[in-house]
Amino acid sequence: MDEFEIIRRYFARESSGEGIRVGIGDDGAVLIPSRDCDLISVVDTLVSGIHFPETLAPADIGYRAVAVNLSDIAAMGARPRWMTLALTLANAEPVWLDGFARGLFEAADEHALALVGGDTTRGEQTVISVQIIADVDTGKAMLRAGAQPGDAIYVTGTVGDAAAGLSILQSGLPRSDDVDYLIRQFTRPAARIEAGAAIASIAHAAIDLSDGLYADLEKLLLASGVAGSLELADIPLSSQLTNLMHEDDALRFALAGGDDYELCFTASAAEDKIADIGESAGVAITRLGQVLEGSGLKCTRNGDEYDYQDAGYRHFN
Amino acid sequence: MDEFEIIRRYFARESSGEGIRVGIGDDGAVLIPSRDCDLISVVDTLVSGIHFPETLAPADIGYRAVAVNLSDIAAMGARPRWMTLALTLANAEPVWLDGFARGLFEAADEHALALVGGDTTRGEQTVISVQIIADVDTGKAMLRAGAQPGDAIYVTGTVGDAAAGLSILQSGLPRSDDVDYLIRQFTRPAARIEAGAAIASIAHAAIDLSDGLYADLEKLLLASGVAGSLELADIPLSSQLTNLMHEDDALRFALAGGDDYELCFTASAAEDKIADIGESAGVAITRLGQVLEGSGLKCTRNGDEYDYQDAGYRHFN
Repeated sequence: MDEFEIIRRYFARESSGEGIRVGIGDDGAVLIPSRDCDLISVVDTLVSGIHFPETLAPADIGYRAVAVNLSDIAAMGARPRWMTLALTLANAEPVWLDGFARGLFEAADEHALALVGGDTTRGEQTVISVQIIADVDTGKAMLRAGAQPGDAIYVTGTVGDAAAGLSILQSGLPRSDDVDYLIRQFTRPAARIEAGAAIASIAHAAIDLSDGLYADLEKLLLASGVAGSLELADIPLSSQLTNLMHEDDALRFALAGGDDYELCFTASAAEDKIADIGESAGVAITRLGQVLEGSGLKCTRNGDEYDYQDAGYRHFN
Repeated sequence: MDEFEIIRRYFARESSGEGIRVGIGDDGAVLIPSRDCDLISVVDTLVSGIHFPETLAPADIGYRAVAVNLSDIAAMGARPRWMTLALTLANAEPVWLDGFARGLFEAADEHALALVGGDTTRGEQTVISVQIIADVDTGKAMLRAGAQPGDAIYVTGTVGDAAAGLSILQSGLPRSDDVDYLIRQFTRPAARIEAGAAIASIAHAAIDLSDGLYADLEKLLLASGVAGSLELADIPLSSQLTNLMHEDDALRFALAGGDDYELCFTASAAEDKIADIGESAGVAITRLGQVLEGSGLKCTRNGDEYDYQDAGYRHFN
């Protein structure tokens, strides 16, 4: 099976998405942008054995590869439009490719995202780069910069679940409903596209949680040139997580674990307005900190200073 | 050196390009599209040891990674705008990264192409995916489909040089001016952006030559639903190539070698108009065949039928 056959068999679906003049099969895709919009361009790579266990189901790998990119789009309050795939494989196994493509299209179809091109190559290890182009009303993209002293800090959903799920996958804890829930947060992360679009009207700054709550919130504060405080007791933890482990361990996954793909943002809007936005987007929004003047991120736990040393996920360390 | 440090030190230049609201450093880049344009999206991956020798100079690798993508943009007659880079590395060597970034920006700067985002990851082997967004006047992109019976088939520049250069790099032929010239066609391929834009007004169909003249012309004919004939004696070969080898070997590199990144196109315009376009774009344009009714690509050599068996480059064979 050569690269053209792989593309034809697994990836060249009829492109039904809006805004596509020419999809897969020419030198490049020809796309029709919406008027009065900025474009958002993101790319994220998953490497086998680094970003996911080699034994992960191919459909989960395909789903994740799209979802982690959609999460960046969500963090800017944008609408995903078109996707390309750069896929490097050690060998072209039909069963793997079939599952991978199924998961990839599942994640894409949830947000009317169209695959419009790609490149399939051979290598020693599976490397998956997905690139997404999105759009957003001109000048309306949410950025990391913009947080203001006095803003409250919020997060969508619960944090720590995906990192705990990955840890469980690797350690092989016996399966249970709680365990299955956590694993699923790692294998099938929900990109907060609707929530991102909904909070865009009130958020001063936003980021998605890929490297851990502490590290990502630090990045937002640094980009905004402000300081922040984080109350550990307010971090939203799922019952599935706290059923399985001591709160200290749950907090460790939440702060440093990464892979949550929830949104963290700052705003000065009234609490009931924030709650309404969460309700309309179908996700809980929790206040867990405050933006301050200065620089750095300090933690408290039940009001007492808490000396947290971050060990968030970083490549090449 | 972690991924953020790599990006900061080697890739996060001040984005001075037009149409960039936010460049590297946020969840995604925010770009301002031109009015009345279609977008072109392309992606191409280079894998170490597959698409280039592991010993190739890092600056050449960086240059090539951009140039092969620019070539796809050229084949559509479009203007390159924004680029993202997905870079997977076994280790982060400063000397390699410095050279790679230098070559990458050299190729980008030749066409005012701005790097606006990327992802740096760790893996067993170097894998480089570059993605470029370009624009072209609405509805004016050159496609592979559109060749019409009666069209002449043209190619820019000379073909076979890059494949011969790669072969020489691998076999270690003694250096000479001719040898250096051919190697440079592989290490520093010139994307035909200006020629692509110039021929867009008269070409019925176009493709860039990445997999070899025969295989790529076959793709163009197939996409257009037509047949073609190719006269081997008319294939433009460089004196550097024919100085070093018998014409039969030179033709083998030209037909099956790949990596030329010249443009092959069909048109029915007058010969002198074609010549004028080549002159204005600074590249020779050579007529080497004819579009016919039917399907398939037949070769002649000095007018006699020539039974050519293609072995163009394909992954996963």
